[in-house]
Amino acid sequence: MILTVTLNTALDLTYGVPELVPHASHRVSEMSERPGGKGLNVARVLSALGHETVVTGFAGGSTGTVLRELLAGLPATDAPGPEAPGTTPAPIAPAPVTDALVTVAGNTRRTIAVVDRATGDTTQLNEPGPLVTADEWAALLGRYEELLTGADAVALCGSLPPGIHVGAYAELVRAARAAGVPVLLDTSGEPLRRGIAARPDLIKPNADELAQLTGSREPMRATRDARRRGAHGVIASLGPDGMLAVTPDGIWQAAPPARVLGNPTGAGDSAVAGLLSGLVEGLSWPDRLRRAVALSTATVLSPTAGDFDRAAYEELLPRVGVEEHTPAAR
Amino acid sequence: MILTVTLNTALDLTYGVPELVPHASHRVSEMSERPGGKGLNVARVLSALGHETVVTGFAGGSTGTVLRELLAGLPATDAPGPEAPGTTPAPIAPAPVTDALVTVAGNTRRTIAVVDRATGDTTQLNEPGPLVTADEWAALLGRYEELLTGADAVALCGSLPPGIHVGAYAELVRAARAAGVPVLLDTSGEPLRRGIAARPDLIKPNADELAQLTGSREPMRATRDARRRGAHGVIASLGPDGMLAVTPDGIWQAAPPARVLGNPTGAGDSAVAGLLSGLVEGLSWPDRLRRAVALSTATVLSPTAGDFDRAAYEELLPRVGVEEHTPAAR
Repeated sequence: MILTVTLNTALDLTYGVPELVPHASHRVSEMSERPGGKGLNVARVLSALGHETVVTGFAGGSTGTVLRELLAGLPATDAPGPEAPGTTPAPIAPAPVTDALVTVAGNTRRTIAVVDRATGDTTQLNEPGPLVTADEWAALLGRYEELLTGADAVALCGSLPPGIHVGAYAELVRAARAAGVPVLLDTSGEPLRRGIAARPDLIKPNADELAQLTGSREPMRATRDARRRGAHGVIASLGPDGMLAVTPDGIWQAAPPARVLGNPTGAGDSAVAGLLSGLVEGLSWPDRLRRAVALSTATVLSPTAGDFDRAAYEELLPRVGVEEHTPAAR
Repeated sequence: MILTVTLNTALDLTYGVPELVPHASHRVSEMSERPGGKGLNVARVLSALGHETVVTGFAGGSTGTVLRELLAGLPATDAPGPEAPGTTPAPIAPAPVTDALVTVAGNTRRTIAVVDRATGDTTQLNEPGPLVTADEWAALLGRYEELLTGADAVALCGSLPPGIHVGAYAELVRAARAAGVPVLLDTSGEPLRRGIAARPDLIKPNADELAQLTGSREPMRATRDARRRGAHGVIASLGPDGMLAVTPDGIWQAAPPARVLGNPTGAGDSAVAGLLSGLVEGLSWPDRLRRAVALSTATVLSPTAGDFDRAAYEELLPRVGVEEHTPAAR
């Protein structure tokens, strides 16, 4: 089982409008609602890859109730129909996603993605999230330590809700390491800085997060600097340029076969799912990176924000280029 | 008791952001949630004026539940503190607002007002509302006819949710007239056009709604044309220019003492509450118009969208100018 932790879960709303015009009134022509927050997105992709997942974090209030109802409906039951025998490999059956969220008194936040139908551009509005009390944080810590006993790996994902101390992720990283469970940390700002010092197995910053952490926008310099701060492995996601992995076993650069156009929402979460599933399956670094790059590229290509296009994923997987940096190049 | 009907109730969310920038990500710094839809806003103002109100219409799903919880908290209990005896008139005690909404299977819509903290400008996003079934509409009609037996007046307010036929308001107007209950219709487009033909006692279009209905932007021409289409009285709200009333008893123009700056959200709903409470209290046309103009101006001046500033209302009331058009001027 893979555990994902989302301290600031969200009810993600997507609104389609013909065009977003500031100071005008808009009738929303299409809308969708789904359980969100980075760790929940990671769990959805892990499930699609056939990995049993348990999600924890906080949920509360009326939006928390809706989020949990939607979560209970995962994995989506639109299983592929019967196919002619022998033509294609059997599809991977989606694995269950188990709700182990801790109930809080506050209201789970909503996030609203307003999608301009003319251009596909998205304007994002994020509520701050519920104020979490000290007792609620203690309840989460207890739940987390129980869940670690059955976990093959854990992902700690996203922003902190109000009331949670900035060293929260460092505390969760230490608990995972004490339990011997590989831990990936995907956050930003001060919670990332503090969390790295607790020596997580992996971090997956994007270029902005890396620059904020290290002050450098030069990928190799920034990634190596991030690793020196305490992370065992740093997988920098460089958008259309793919990923740069600086690990104890070597340095690799992985890139999609071509640049793609689409919606990058959730591409980073798909990459986390790729890295974590590869780790649990004992794949080599190049194969983990191939999977992570193919999944995040297939997420950009998907018509639904945050989902990945399975056919594109399978088509891309063997075509992702992975190059090892030789010691001289290091 | 005054009855208000809101077929497309809404959970109104207000998000404060430093500045709304299309295609950027925004952290919402302040947010509020309240029960909305025009008829609910009218009821809130009627309650503040001391009129018992019953609200009907549709509510459903998780957002409907939240809306009804918030509605149960009305009227707000922040009663004025004790004052030195004899210094000011006793404040009007808010009257109860009773929930007689019909439960539907669909989810009540949300509306989101994104307020730019730098300029005060608002960008509005409105979900379409639940699909209402024929059985749900029949249940509403039954509830409405029961409620009419105890009503002194009724206001029919706002847009129609999906699934409701465009002649719905005409049907509700006819039922009110058959029951001998004065009926005010406040909607727009085709539902207004159809509703007028059923001969409501009053309509309260704004300049855009009038122009859409009659093809004219000249206030006197358009207002008289609207009256010829079937409404007994037409009160055109002309924004900062006040109101023009074309009624069976005469024609009046009412205007605030000065132009004011502020948020016009809800000003029309306050005007409806002013007109309807004045009708029920048997006020003269000039006094009804004075109240409607003072209430809507005090709504523009209120720091909270949709609330009215009571001190401003009391100060404005005697200063609203009302002028009768003599037959020659007609």
